[in-house]
Amino acid sequence: MRASGNPPQTKPLINPAMQVLRCITCHARYPLGDMPEGCPACAAAGHPSSLEAVYDAQVLDFAPKSGSYTWGHWQPYLDGVSLGEGATPCIPVPALAALADVASVWIKNEGANPTGSHKDRMSAQAVSRALDMGAREVVLASSGNAAVSAAAYCAAAGLDCEVATYQALPAVFDAALRHYGARRVVCDSGHARWAHVRRRVREEGAFALTNYSVPAVGSPVFGVEGYRAVALEWVAQGCRPDHVIVPTARGDLLWGIYSALRDLVALGHLPKLPRLWAVEPFPRLSRVLAGASQQADFAGTTLQFSTAGSTVTAQQVFAVRRSGGGAVVVDDAAARDGTGHLAAAGFWVELCAGAGLAAAQRLRADGRIDRTEAVMLMLTARGDRDPGQA
Amino acid sequence: MRASGNPPQTKPLINPAMQVLRCITCHARYPLGDMPEGCPACAAAGHPSSLEAVYDAQVLDFAPKSGSYTWGHWQPYLDGVSLGEGATPCIPVPALAALADVASVWIKNEGANPTGSHKDRMSAQAVSRALDMGAREVVLASSGNAAVSAAAYCAAAGLDCEVATYQALPAVFDAALRHYGARRVVCDSGHARWAHVRRRVREEGAFALTNYSVPAVGSPVFGVEGYRAVALEWVAQGCRPDHVIVPTARGDLLWGIYSALRDLVALGHLPKLPRLWAVEPFPRLSRVLAGASQQADFAGTTLQFSTAGSTVTAQQVFAVRRSGGGAVVVDDAAARDGTGHLAAAGFWVELCAGAGLAAAQRLRADGRIDRTEAVMLMLTARGDRDPGQA
Repeated sequence: MRASGNPPQTKPLINPAMQVLRCITCHARYPLGDMPEGCPACAAAGHPSSLEAVYDAQVLDFAPKSGSYTWGHWQPYLDGVSLGEGATPCIPVPALAALADVASVWIKNEGANPTGSHKDRMSAQAVSRALDMGAREVVLASSGNAAVSAAAYCAAAGLDCEVATYQALPAVFDAALRHYGARRVVCDSGHARWAHVRRRVREEGAFALTNYSVPAVGSPVFGVEGYRAVALEWVAQGCRPDHVIVPTARGDLLWGIYSALRDLVALGHLPKLPRLWAVEPFPRLSRVLAGASQQADFAGTTLQFSTAGSTVTAQQVFAVRRSGGGAVVVDDAAARDGTGHLAAAGFWVELCAGAGLAAAQRLRADGRIDRTEAVMLMLTARGDRDPGQA
Repeated sequence: MRASGNPPQTKPLINPAMQVLRCITCHARYPLGDMPEGCPACAAAGHPSSLEAVYDAQVLDFAPKSGSYTWGHWQPYLDGVSLGEGATPCIPVPALAALADVASVWIKNEGANPTGSHKDRMSAQAVSRALDMGAREVVLASSGNAAVSAAAYCAAAGLDCEVATYQALPAVFDAALRHYGARRVVCDSGHARWAHVRRRVREEGAFALTNYSVPAVGSPVFGVEGYRAVALEWVAQGCRPDHVIVPTARGDLLWGIYSALRDLVALGHLPKLPRLWAVEPFPRLSRVLAGASQQADFAGTTLQFSTAGSTVTAQQVFAVRRSGGGAVVVDDAAARDGTGHLAAAGFWVELCAGAGLAAAQRLRADGRIDRTEAVMLMLTARGDRDPGQA
């Protein structure tokens, strides 16, 4: 069942319009290369920060391309490993608009990606990068969805995949890793997972798909840029939300959406940036926005396994601040109510995605969302393998 | 969590080009109406047969439409209840072509539908029909995927949903039914499930989504026609398989694919019909093609739960005969090998979809598929909720 014997489906084709990497915090520029710990200058100063790719704006043509990467010209790889990710359903749901007392609620159903979560967008770009760099082995830390996604894309690419995960990983995720031929390493805690990945990358040359720094940064830039297509898709479809609600752990998806929308505004394809709201299961980003150090550790427990974790990243702070949004804390009980309402409209999603609906209701109740506005909910993953909802 | 309070998302809009229903066996024509037992003339003669919809060929424009039903003009409803089904990935997988020793293998990944299987295509059309007819309650018999799909679409439509299923239904399906607010009725056997549905339809006016006749027919026409979009999508994408391999129980998907391809050929959009191959877990259709009565009962046991069952329908016989294809028996061990190879290429699918790859290898080995030909595999549903692969 190991994938190693398979030839890759497609040779990765790097985007020639990608010019440099740039720190999202200090704006230092770096030549294209793999820097999984983010900006060295910011890390040395004690506040690690993500990098982003800078593209020649001339080639950011706002039209989807045929081929496996519809929006590859807005991303690091024009083409590469693909299982058919993206082009997920984006649908208005009047029942939810009535419930949230707003003009419209749209859902972007990322659970319709090949392995069932938004992570497939990151995996396609990041595994293409690994393949292009001649990596033999990909390593990551994950609580579930990213692990399954990486395992599937590594299988398709013929790369070995090692996942640092935890003892109580639900059976459905463990079975997926076995079927895709990934190796599972069990660690005691989130920080132990990162330590394992760090050692494998620094000492053994494995290719990192996720963060391993403490304080945390986002996942490596070649993966995070994959999320840009999410926003490009809905804008190309004519959808114009005033608010976008994103379940968030370290903000990879949030940043990808932000960076694409920012570029669309800059290029005149979109009149204004919607407000981006990060939904978290316990106060982390909220505390940073209120003045706490972004580098602090914010422990908390939750059944929202995809958005657990105790760290806050620069990218999520910037995405919500620069868009005029913020953070919303939704506990597990309220998240459960949200998943109930979404299921009653036909969408059974993971608990943290249900929290997104609860966040919209909260923002409407306190007036930060107006009755006349349009709201986009990111349904990050399917509900049927969520251990918190069995 | 019950869905009944939700307003429907979209008022169903019937296709004005749909003229009559026609028996696929005796070609008798009937006015548009709900006939879940199929052609009355054929049923009276002891060989129940499905009906199909006849459209004004003038309007079968071979171009996708914007809106929720991209291919609604080729189906009973132009628009209606939608969760974003269809437009599933259709991808060439060179590793599988090498394995099967053919020119190309394409996968059509129906697991990327909103509830994880091809059934969503049937549910969209059939639940729209139920809503359009003013039905209060939808009832069906299912071993898993169809149940979850119907439950989700009924939730979206605000209709009650009752599923006749079996005691050992895996927990993940049971949880989905609970989340979507469907009612589950436990029956001892496949025939007992049909008896339950029959009583609910004939005596209590429930709207049937699946067959309940013995001998069996396909599911009601307004649902089966939903599968036509599968083939329309790949042909519109420029994909021209010589062989199409379809895991089959009673042949709803197989017939939908056949009928669309047949119409495309008749209208000059496609030069020739590919051969359609029905994959079955134990000999049923194979025996009928070899001379056994199609109305016989062909008992067998299998872990391929989606293609279990002991009956053969007219629609599957016609689809393979008229296309020059046939039936291929793939036992569970060979199906498991198939899922292993598919997972190693990045696609973890239900066991019967793995059987499709094994069938392609068998057909190639005995020369019915040539080395120079292109093969399409229907990946009917995801693997991660398949009890045979936990």
